[in-house]
Amino acid sequence: MFNIFSLKGGLENVDGFFCDGVNVGMKTNPANSGDSDIDGDIAFIRSDTLCDVTAKFTTNKFQASPIKHYQKYPKDFKTNFILMNAKNANAMTGERGVKDIEGIFKKLSSYTSLTNPIMSSTGVIGYRLNQEKITSAFDKFNFNAKNSDKTARAIMTTDSFKKELSFRVDLDNGDSFNIAGICKGAGMINPAMATMLCFITTDALIPKSDMKELLDNAVNGSFNRVSVDGDTSTNDTVLLLANGKSNAYNKEAFREVLNKITFELAMMILQDGEGANKLVAFEVKGAKSKKEAEIASKALSNSLLVKTALFGEDPNWGRIASTIGASGVECSEESLTIYYDDLIIYSNKLRELNKEREDKAYKIMKNSSFKVICDLGLGDGEFTSYGCDLSYEYVKINAEYRT
Amino acid sequence: MFNIFSLKGGLENVDGFFCDGVNVGMKTNPANSGDSDIDGDIAFIRSDTLCDVTAKFTTNKFQASPIKHYQKYPKDFKTNFILMNAKNANAMTGERGVKDIEGIFKKLSSYTSLTNPIMSSTGVIGYRLNQEKITSAFDKFNFNAKNSDKTARAIMTTDSFKKELSFRVDLDNGDSFNIAGICKGAGMINPAMATMLCFITTDALIPKSDMKELLDNAVNGSFNRVSVDGDTSTNDTVLLLANGKSNAYNKEAFREVLNKITFELAMMILQDGEGANKLVAFEVKGAKSKKEAEIASKALSNSLLVKTALFGEDPNWGRIASTIGASGVECSEESLTIYYDDLIIYSNKLRELNKEREDKAYKIMKNSSFKVICDLGLGDGEFTSYGCDLSYEYVKINAEYRT
Repeated sequence: MFNIFSLKGGLENVDGFFCDGVNVGMKTNPANSGDSDIDGDIAFIRSDTLCDVTAKFTTNKFQASPIKHYQKYPKDFKTNFILMNAKNANAMTGERGVKDIEGIFKKLSSYTSLTNPIMSSTGVIGYRLNQEKITSAFDKFNFNAKNSDKTARAIMTTDSFKKELSFRVDLDNGDSFNIAGICKGAGMINPAMATMLCFITTDALIPKSDMKELLDNAVNGSFNRVSVDGDTSTNDTVLLLANGKSNAYNKEAFREVLNKITFELAMMILQDGEGANKLVAFEVKGAKSKKEAEIASKALSNSLLVKTALFGEDPNWGRIASTIGASGVECSEESLTIYYDDLIIYSNKLRELNKEREDKAYKIMKNSSFKVICDLGLGDGEFTSYGCDLSYEYVKINAEYRT
Repeated sequence: MFNIFSLKGGLENVDGFFCDGVNVGMKTNPANSGDSDIDGDIAFIRSDTLCDVTAKFTTNKFQASPIKHYQKYPKDFKTNFILMNAKNANAMTGERGVKDIEGIFKKLSSYTSLTNPIMSSTGVIGYRLNQEKITSAFDKFNFNAKNSDKTARAIMTTDSFKKELSFRVDLDNGDSFNIAGICKGAGMINPAMATMLCFITTDALIPKSDMKELLDNAVNGSFNRVSVDGDTSTNDTVLLLANGKSNAYNKEAFREVLNKITFELAMMILQDGEGANKLVAFEVKGAKSKKEAEIASKALSNSLLVKTALFGEDPNWGRIASTIGASGVECSEESLTIYYDDLIIYSNKLRELNKEREDKAYKIMKNSSFKVICDLGLGDGEFTSYGCDLSYEYVKINAEYRT
């Protein structure tokens, strides 16, 4: 019915969108000299026609000023511009934080056409944006560039690599549309939505009514399932912009490619988890309900003891069992089975780990990615979330970096 | 009305109780050679008369076999013996785990008088007890010893120091009674009760009906308020044994001394938190309700980003605010005030940290213990929990040690 092809590059592959990233030396605090190896700190995505837009924001009660600014627009507004900056989250800055954004856009409007422009920020909490520095970017921007690479790099904070993807979808009838996404995020990641910014553009002719449904669904299957450290930021944002330029659309095809791009971007965040060496899927099945499976799965991906055992490559199923037991879901020693990939590491019959199974488990844990499967043996509830190990490096990054 | 005096030593100060600890070389797994610097691995507490007993156990659904064994006794049973071992939790061992305990006590009964003996274990999950090794201790025990030091040392796992305390309470009428406690625990600590074992003995003539009420109250104010890593074990146990030998009792005095001994033991656990360098009180006030204050306070003591900022001595109030916002409690930027000890580090008026306040905050964070106070400014709810920083050492201990 349709075919999905991975493309080289990112945002440049979607018709009608332009983007660029530059460096204006944003440093919010003398003690924090910023990340010298990151080239940019401010970027934009612009569309040459008005776009429909839908967004998912953090569940944190202290929503950052850019989110408050977005929420002042009327329902079903259209936009043609997103401005993004790193190194300053513009969070906990009160009403001034929103006014600062309005001031910035007022200046920007003399450089390029703006309709309901959106701002998105990441970085340190608690400092006002330096308007002078931000507006100094406007002379540097090439508003007709399609520089996805620089855009994706400009939004990085503790990220160690840029994150961009793009796909072409060919429909049966010969039509095709493109979709692209960039994101940032490496720490402060939690299933209740990662601390991350993600910007997705498409030229599909998607009806506004489908956008929210499909984005909700995609985020629940991707960003809401990854955990680096169980923390949820003030700035988490996923934005989907659609300009309809391809004149092509198929709901199932769009659902699939949107799920794919968000899932793969989420996995890139996890692979880049601060100090992480291993990407682990925590698949819980046989739970009394899907909700219980989700609780147990997320407890596993957030447990410090599980995460340090992964780092130590210790086939210590006791910590996995204990975490499930502590999560509050219904479970019993007799019906529980734990696997590493296909290897049974605990069951009612095989309780103690013998040398042979321990050696096999140890080999699996040496891999950079594997599954921990817990079958509670009580019902049909299933849920998978994704986590990583906790290393010295995580502590180092977070003791030294000011978020 | 009464006076409380701290005594030197531990369990030896309570009339009618005897205790000893020995080493029988319990090693559950060739890969895990145990902790060579810990002298004992098995210990007992014995009373020469029958005691009333009350217990608080883990909320983990996978309760360890010693807990299941305890729960088979009828309500209001009396006991004269507790046997404790380290290095093997006897958890996730099924019905055999309980039968093993019965077998051990059958052998022990030829050495000393046993009435409803209690077992308590800590260590690795998922291996049966080595009955031969455990019973080999019985020849080594001195059943008439009062060796609290060896007893407290024998139950240590990743603990770096033994934990014992004792007090004498003098009442107005010239009567007095004693109370003593030992405990272990350094990791797998969570507000939903620490992974810890705690044994408290008293010669107070406390009515059985008061024991449960006062122990519940004491545990809620102590062990349930400390967090090292947010994990809750299969074996957590607090036992209170009372033999009435002093013929002295006063409910208020007992409440106070029991609160004191459990709180001070809980603080010893936190000071010994794996790799911890700082002990921090997270005092949340001005919340809409006590429950909301508790949620916010425990979110702070469990946040990896807060814990690593403490380790980095970074006066980063943004992570504190973000954690409160993410905890789901009602809060607002305008009504929130954050203090480090007496220093306001965030308020609606003082948002950005200037150099002077940053330097002051930095000095406070250099201390080995301080308060983080968050006034939500919305109501009367208050709650304090206690946490520690997260260091490289925590990761090292938990990557290498098999729990």
